[in-house]
Amino acid sequence: MLSRAITLVESRLASDQDLAQEVIDAVLPHSGNSLRIGITGVPGVGKSTFIEAFGLYLIREQRQKLAVLAIDPTSQRSGGSILGDKTRMDALSTNPDAYIRPSPAGKSLGGVARSTRESIILCEAAGFDTIFVETVGVGQSETAVHAMVDFFLLLMLAGAGDELQGIKRGIMEMSDAIAITKADGTNVQKAKTARAEYRNALHLYPRAASGWLPQVSTCSALQPSGLDTIWKTVTEYLSLTKGNGYFEQKRRDQNLQWLHEAIRQGLEENFYRHGQVKTQLPAITSEVKEGHKSAFAAAAELLRLV
Amino acid sequence: MLSRAITLVESRLASDQDLAQEVIDAVLPHSGNSLRIGITGVPGVGKSTFIEAFGLYLIREQRQKLAVLAIDPTSQRSGGSILGDKTRMDALSTNPDAYIRPSPAGKSLGGVARSTRESIILCEAAGFDTIFVETVGVGQSETAVHAMVDFFLLLMLAGAGDELQGIKRGIMEMSDAIAITKADGTNVQKAKTARAEYRNALHLYPRAASGWLPQVSTCSALQPSGLDTIWKTVTEYLSLTKGNGYFEQKRRDQNLQWLHEAIRQGLEENFYRHGQVKTQLPAITSEVKEGHKSAFAAAAELLRLV
Repeated sequence: MLSRAITLVESRLASDQDLAQEVIDAVLPHSGNSLRIGITGVPGVGKSTFIEAFGLYLIREQRQKLAVLAIDPTSQRSGGSILGDKTRMDALSTNPDAYIRPSPAGKSLGGVARSTRESIILCEAAGFDTIFVETVGVGQSETAVHAMVDFFLLLMLAGAGDELQGIKRGIMEMSDAIAITKADGTNVQKAKTARAEYRNALHLYPRAASGWLPQVSTCSALQPSGLDTIWKTVTEYLSLTKGNGYFEQKRRDQNLQWLHEAIRQGLEENFYRHGQVKTQLPAITSEVKEGHKSAFAAAAELLRLV
Repeated sequence: MLSRAITLVESRLASDQDLAQEVIDAVLPHSGNSLRIGITGVPGVGKSTFIEAFGLYLIREQRQKLAVLAIDPTSQRSGGSILGDKTRMDALSTNPDAYIRPSPAGKSLGGVARSTRESIILCEAAGFDTIFVETVGVGQSETAVHAMVDFFLLLMLAGAGDELQGIKRGIMEMSDAIAITKADGTNVQKAKTARAEYRNALHLYPRAASGWLPQVSTCSALQPSGLDTIWKTVTEYLSLTKGNGYFEQKRRDQNLQWLHEAIRQGLEENFYRHGQVKTQLPAITSEVKEGHKSAFAAAAELLRLV
């Protein structure tokens, strides 16, 4: 039933979308009682292995029911889709307390972001207490994920001085915790060094509005180890932000942000599929591109068509 | 005449805006032949002193005609407006080859960004070869500036380990050069140390699409010194990017970006001032905020009104 409802919110058919809105509004009162965790990291960081290990820990040790959603449009993914991941998440994907849902194929980031956000509501209404929203961490999707989760976890690899390589600067700044993965075997010392470096780096950032100081820890999905520390960090964050009202405030702000985002998307969709706009856009675009017409004059001209 | 034309593009009156578009389109063929440099830095970095010294250097030594525009909405500025700066830029503001224009007061960032971009065109048509677009470097405006300039210069202060404090992470990433200011007197050694640190930090970033490796140098507006090095960096950048086609490509991309941005702004303006939307928005907003209605259902409802 949950899968069918998610398929409905992912559909682009107008009739499906109307029905989807009815479903969402009907289940809305039963949603919201979960912890939404965004998880990101570059390809190679061991994201699917981590999600399998941390997910099983949450289910077995913390009695959570876990849903895993992915936000990256499949076409843009550089390192394998979650569908591939799902088959790698053997134990998690067959566990009755886990639900794994791959990203819909061939959709724009805006479309995926929207259906992921609605899928969170559906998963919550279906009784899942913890929702992972995973993303690749090299593109534009982290901002979208950050705007739909309570807690943002960044996975990093211990390296030799090149730890910052490949991850966008803004992503570290939006993280509530960093977990250095693969801290096992001969890697343990390197991971500890990286932990110290990240702790130093994070101290340079201005204090977040939540009052929270991002935490850095090491973990191994192989052993497994360090997963309890990460969970402890998450619960400490919850206790702080639910205590000072930040948690609820952030969710309200996120709701508003999505309202304005949805309005913007709707306005642009209607505009760009308008008959006359479609006809005239190519010529005007090329005039603007070559500097023969100002962007604002061209925009005014196109806006007069609708 | 230039000042009157800029006042016209800053006006919110519909009749002024129509006339402004005519002016812009008429002068457009005479624009584009300048170098557009974005300059940012936190309050206290000595931005106005730097602009005065570097501006005079360009006018006197490089025979440039210089226009200085500011993008930060006055109301949001934490450290004095450019109007105040203008009175501090004594020699520059009275130099016949310089034109300084403060930010329009009381406008939104979107409004300022738009009028600044059109002001660039007007300044170019008026014969200015170099345009500085200055911004405070602590807010949202850097992305807007970055999208309208050819070269982005970040001013930084040498400090003791806290160099990153106060500046947003993404800003370093979008910079083509960093200049460490106030490298004079007892500060010289500290500035050199900071230069080495920034050079190391910049090496960690992925190579930019332009093929350019951001440069770091020190300067003093007081002595003055180091200004020729910064200019040399700018000309090297120009030579590289004009040679490999990146310069022209970036300008075309910026034109397109502004077209879509202007369309978005126009659509949202029309939407939010629509009578029924205005009436119903407050109640719907509060339902969405409190989680009683989904953002997407609410957006669909509002979009049906127009």
